[in-house]
Amino acid sequence: MSVVVFLTDFGLQDDFVGTCHGVIEGIAPGTRVIDLTHGIAPQAVLQGALVLRNTAPYMPPAVHLAVVDPDVGGNRRAIALRTRDGRLWVGPDNGLLLLAADAGGIEAAHELVAERYRLADVSQTFHARDIFAPAAAHLAAGAPIEQLGPAVDPGSLVRLVLPEPEVRRSQVSGTVLVIDRFGNVSTNVRPEHVEALGLQNGDQVEIRLALDRYFAVVAGAFADAQPGELILYEDSYGLMTLAISRGDAARLTGVQTGDQIRIAVQ
Amino acid sequence: MSVVVFLTDFGLQDDFVGTCHGVIEGIAPGTRVIDLTHGIAPQAVLQGALVLRNTAPYMPPAVHLAVVDPDVGGNRRAIALRTRDGRLWVGPDNGLLLLAADAGGIEAAHELVAERYRLADVSQTFHARDIFAPAAAHLAAGAPIEQLGPAVDPGSLVRLVLPEPEVRRSQVSGTVLVIDRFGNVSTNVRPEHVEALGLQNGDQVEIRLALDRYFAVVAGAFADAQPGELILYEDSYGLMTLAISRGDAARLTGVQTGDQIRIAVQ
Amino acid sequence: MSVVVFLTDFGLQDDFVGTCHGVIEGIAPGTRVIDLTHGIAPQAVLQGALVLRNTAPYMPPAVHLAVVDPDVGGNRRAIALRTRDGRLWVGPDNGLLLLAADAGGIEAAHELVAERYRLADVSQTFHARDIFAPAAAHLAAGAPIEQLGPAVDPGSLVRLVLPEPEVRRSQVSGTVLVIDRFGNVSTNVRPEHVEALGLQNGDQVEIRLALDRYFAVVAGAFADAQPGELILYEDSYGLMTLAISRGDAARLTGVQTGDQIRIAVQ
Repeated sequence: MSVVVFLTDFGLQDDFVGTCHGVIEGIAPGTRVIDLTHGIAPQAVLQGALVLRNTAPYMPPAVHLAVVDPDVGGNRRAIALRTRDGRLWVGPDNGLLLLAADAGGIEAAHELVAERYRLADVSQTFHARDIFAPAAAHLAAGAPIEQLGPAVDPGSLVRLVLPEPEVRRSQVSGTVLVIDRFGNVSTNVRPEHVEALGLQNGDQVEIRLALDRYFAVVAGAFADAQPGELILYEDSYGLMTLAISRGDAARLTGVQTGDQIRIAVQ
Repeated sequence: MSVVVFLTDFGLQDDFVGTCHGVIEGIAPGTRVIDLTHGIAPQAVLQGALVLRNTAPYMPPAVHLAVVDPDVGGNRRAIALRTRDGRLWVGPDNGLLLLAADAGGIEAAHELVAERYRLADVSQTFHARDIFAPAAAHLAAGAPIEQLGPAVDPGSLVRLVLPEPEVRRSQVSGTVLVIDRFGNVSTNVRPEHVEALGLQNGDQVEIRLALDRYFAVVAGAFADAQPGELILYEDSYGLMTLAISRGDAARLTGVQTGDQIRIAVQ
Repeated sequence: MSVVVFLTDFGLQDDFVGTCHGVIEGIAPGTRVIDLTHGIAPQAVLQGALVLRNTAPYMPPAVHLAVVDPDVGGNRRAIALRTRDGRLWVGPDNGLLLLAADAGGIEAAHELVAERYRLADVSQTFHARDIFAPAAAHLAAGAPIEQLGPAVDPGSLVRLVLPEPEVRRSQVSGTVLVIDRFGNVSTNVRPEHVEALGLQNGDQVEIRLALDRYFAVVAGAFADAQPGELILYEDSYGLMTLAISRGDAARLTGVQTGDQIRIAVQ
């Protein structure tokens, strides 16, 4: 297993990501590092967890290195996990890894405390460089997860509570989870919730965001709508998503991650 | 041929690019992926086509995977091409590949319909992940292009019409094609058009953008001008480009891609 | 030595970085390129030099290719250096490489003029593609540095003057060097300057930025402060840095790179 899949909220403006690449190459020369994304919103642990879970089925067997870590330097643990699908996971114990790892079935969890698998000097603020990337590199190079530190009870790991949509007779209330660069607005509403309202492709729905109302068409693909028309479709990860064919739905509506969205039968 | 050169309008904020990397590594382990750019403006097919054409001479032998695809999920075909220079090209049939591929000389064109070379589930909105990246990975791993789908008449492929500058006696009217991160403004005007006006390095010209006029100096390099001075120079891809030595010409002028620009003899 | 560590101010929106990757792969197939960062502020030579110096200890043995080059096409020399720690450095002779290379101990310096190690056509504006990346690739492939051009006296290389903080009895005046994506504000003030004021973790200090005053707590880690509290801490490269736990200190204060900052005992 010589692939590391790397996700952070570091962005690419600074040297944080490149420095971790250097550390990995130094410890495990020849390791392939796939930058899954470094564009998670700063400290947005839930967004990172969702992206890890959604994308795992498309990744090769790998060590998944993920760092969205608002409590760096505090009491949160640093962990490595092994799941029954053969994947390894490295990151902070703040829920980031757990949506994906629980889906894979955790069979081992260890706390990253063995000094041999850290850099010699560990800073208070850059554990990605000093603890997480070294651990991932050693795992990629074949170190047994047991050597990285003592076993941890998987039941004791921090887990996030995913907001669930609330379905009523003629509407469903959900939460905006992710907005992508095209301005597509993914929510926690799933196709089953929309079907429960009796809606099908081609139906018009009312979208309520704060005090504003919009009309959208339930559609299977962008090509099913006229340019400029708002559509509600199932995105490629199975989330109901608001978009504009050849336009930017987030800019039109001003919606932000975490906002409430209501989808109502017309 | 185990190099994939990858261009999209996906940006790097989301996981789209990283997910495609994972798909490629899963299908063809060890393939080198060069991220040419993912910063093409959203759905700017012409910009993508120009970058592909301009950069191809600097790329090693490769499978060129390019996705700028406003009609994903619609009727446009997914294609793979082979050119006489030995390169392979994968992307939507919307003109994106054709400026470069026509320059290389198309010797085979196939439609990407063979299910064996797609992911098992094909979404309506993320064909880069489900169709294009798998095709590129299989080609990089040695699959013959003929197996990816039926042959297509190269004459039937969608081609873009590149706007041509209009040259008069004392001025040339062109179009702004690309603005880079330094604010340099590349146009479709070429050195031959400027020479046709009798201009040479050191001459002053008038630049008209919408209602505004600026004065610029025809120059060979930034170092030929004073800091803060507007210059008109041939960029590294042979396009006449407006810039400011140690400054940002796009910000000064407010110009945008697609705007008209007139260059007039003083 | 088949690793190239690559730093520029090119950003990732355009194809500049990807084109250089293609050139390197064409000359030295299989070379690993670590993108240290391409987010150096446009033409910010000092920022680039600091990042090179700070990160070098975390990089594997490599050819360090760095291009922040406001004088491209002018009279500045293109150089390659070898340092006593076995590293190679390629870039413009404008001080960019020297903070790091002087720390490593320069044992050879050569001017990049040998045509064999450049592309056949050298543009006036994109020496990263035409001169620097080819030189780095040839060095990575094993070309002796002596063949790239004539030796240069290391004493003749351009060096930057780093601003030094001014320490008085009850305050230290420094300069803002780098602002990262989290809004953390790194200065040229070092822990020794803060200690010289008799300050220790938990002490409150007054921060003066232009006409504004703020109160901050000297802290070892974000976790030592309350969310929303301003802290002054030693960052992972040894620079005293202003930050807000779970917030954005740069946005709060409006501070910019190059601004003066005063830290005063309360």
